[in-house]
Amino acid sequence: MVVGKQSVIFDNPPFIKSMASIVGKKEGDGPLGPEFDRIVEDAKFGTDNWEAAESMFQTETAKLAITKSGLQKDAVRYVFAGDLLGQLIASTFGLAELEIPFFGLYGACSTMGEAMSLGAMNVAAGYADYVLALASSHFASAEKSFRFPLEYSNQRPFSATWTVTGCGAVIIGKEGNIAKIEGVTTGKIVDYGVKDSMNMGACMAPAAADVIYRNLKDLSVDCNHYDKIITGDLGVVGRTILLDLLNDRGVDISSLHYDCGIEIFDNSLQDTHSGGSGCGCSASVLCSYILKQLESGNWKRILFVPTGALMSPISFNEGNSIPGIAHAVILSAI
Amino acid sequence: MVVGKQSVIFDNPPFIKSMASIVGKKEGDGPLGPEFDRIVEDAKFGTDNWEAAESMFQTETAKLAITKSGLQKDAVRYVFAGDLLGQLIASTFGLAELEIPFFGLYGACSTMGEAMSLGAMNVAAGYADYVLALASSHFASAEKSFRFPLEYSNQRPFSATWTVTGCGAVIIGKEGNIAKIEGVTTGKIVDYGVKDSMNMGACMAPAAADVIYRNLKDLSVDCNHYDKIITGDLGVVGRTILLDLLNDRGVDISSLHYDCGIEIFDNSLQDTHSGGSGCGCSASVLCSYILKQLESGNWKRILFVPTGALMSPISFNEGNSIPGIAHAVILSAI
Repeated sequence: MVVGKQSVIFDNPPFIKSMASIVGKKEGDGPLGPEFDRIVEDAKFGTDNWEAAESMFQTETAKLAITKSGLQKDAVRYVFAGDLLGQLIASTFGLAELEIPFFGLYGACSTMGEAMSLGAMNVAAGYADYVLALASSHFASAEKSFRFPLEYSNQRPFSATWTVTGCGAVIIGKEGNIAKIEGVTTGKIVDYGVKDSMNMGACMAPAAADVIYRNLKDLSVDCNHYDKIITGDLGVVGRTILLDLLNDRGVDISSLHYDCGIEIFDNSLQDTHSGGSGCGCSASVLCSYILKQLESGNWKRILFVPTGALMSPISFNEGNSIPGIAHAVILSAI
Repeated sequence: MVVGKQSVIFDNPPFIKSMASIVGKKEGDGPLGPEFDRIVEDAKFGTDNWEAAESMFQTETAKLAITKSGLQKDAVRYVFAGDLLGQLIASTFGLAELEIPFFGLYGACSTMGEAMSLGAMNVAAGYADYVLALASSHFASAEKSFRFPLEYSNQRPFSATWTVTGCGAVIIGKEGNIAKIEGVTTGKIVDYGVKDSMNMGACMAPAAADVIYRNLKDLSVDCNHYDKIITGDLGVVGRTILLDLLNDRGVDISSLHYDCGIEIFDNSLQDTHSGGSGCGCSASVLCSYILKQLESGNWKRILFVPTGALMSPISFNEGNSIPGIAHAVILSAI
């Protein structure tokens, strides 16, 4: 059922049937380390280069999600997936061997929200019994693409985030025991004119504030409708901006807010500055710690809001701003 | 209604309510020149660089499609869009000002098929009354991204294609007078191991053959179900491979086949070698010549199959193959 300007609440809500998360060593050493399915010590995951490594994260996480679902691969009708790299090469080379009809998505670090939104919409509409939704990132392939070669050992400001190496995947289906997808709120591109690629939190916070505010208005609820409102990778700098922007609109989520980027690393021990980032950040934290809280009933209902900074090295070097986007998914315990 | 392994036939088919196409000078000089809505002589479209120019093609084409639909912008609930550039910057910077909830897509040159598939699925499911689907490419931004700086004046082999500068956009809605979207067949990533970035037709033809064959099997029809089977940008080299691959499976579409890339330029006059390519090729030809044939009833039913080559400069330079993907949309006269 269409609700308000940007939301859909499903008449027949789909479910999360299985989840899988595979991360790198640094993520495994962080506070959420014990929550992930698998920690891969080798940053190249047995391959020759960073991009192939990221593809391997997608391949293995997708296969693990399918295995954990108990389904045969052929029962999965569509894959909705993406990554941060130009032309989605992590997904292309990671998922080809699945031979499942493929929708390639780009929403920067909001991609897991986009994939789950479209996947859930397709299952709820009856176009598929089961779909796979996933997103990945890799510290080294992202730094190489967006900032500096690692060999430069460049210094990073406090506002910089650390791209998570990892992948999270869910099977969304007409039935499942982990959580229910009640609905989605689809974000707009929001551009506040921020131009600092070392301060992604500031680029993304306005888009997160916009989609959270819109979700509450569309559903005619206050923020206590949710046990947690969970952003992707705003980090400590972006979190402050988000809370301020929502306060300006009369919404105080400070006691409900959780940011995957803040939680995945311990900055005091891991030198990760503002926090973790990348599509793989919110995807891997969702597919481990977050969904376990819903599965166990610790949390009854959450709003999951992966946040993306829309830029390329070319647009950045041409002096463009870095717009943001965020997509919200309403998840509840069964 | 789900049909076969990869297809959906809509119980309540959505319609194409309006279309718009804006192309560059070379495309305007080609055989289809009189079909397009607007021809822009300035390759930079009044901007400072090729990427901003491509964004301007998206902005202006999107606005024109909305204007031609007679709808207010607010009536368009979602945009499904993409382009060839890294991190979809043509779409991000071209569509932000619309302030419409945005799903960013990457399917290389198959993106118009992906956008129309997801857009039609959303309208048919009742998630939106109207959506906008569009895709663009630009010769200069693509050459710079994928091959050589234009200033090199490098030679191009016969198998090379010429990236179309242009954009095509449709409004898909619960009602409309141009054509009906009967259904979609979603493609898989198909990799035959081709590694030649100057022969995109060979990379994409296996994916096109696969999705066309699957469409016919899923619907239990022979190829004469369609008046035309229209690929995106295989060019003359890719066309031969497509026809051979389908002949091997006992399907002869030679008399029905039309390729947007072959038709948009006149190679004998325009030195475009194998033909046109890019997301903007199939999108602009669809949103001009092709939809006019359906609107007038000249054609009763077609299969529109934009074709994409999945590569990035990084994956190519690392020695990877170039997999293909294609997404099929069944369009019929009203």
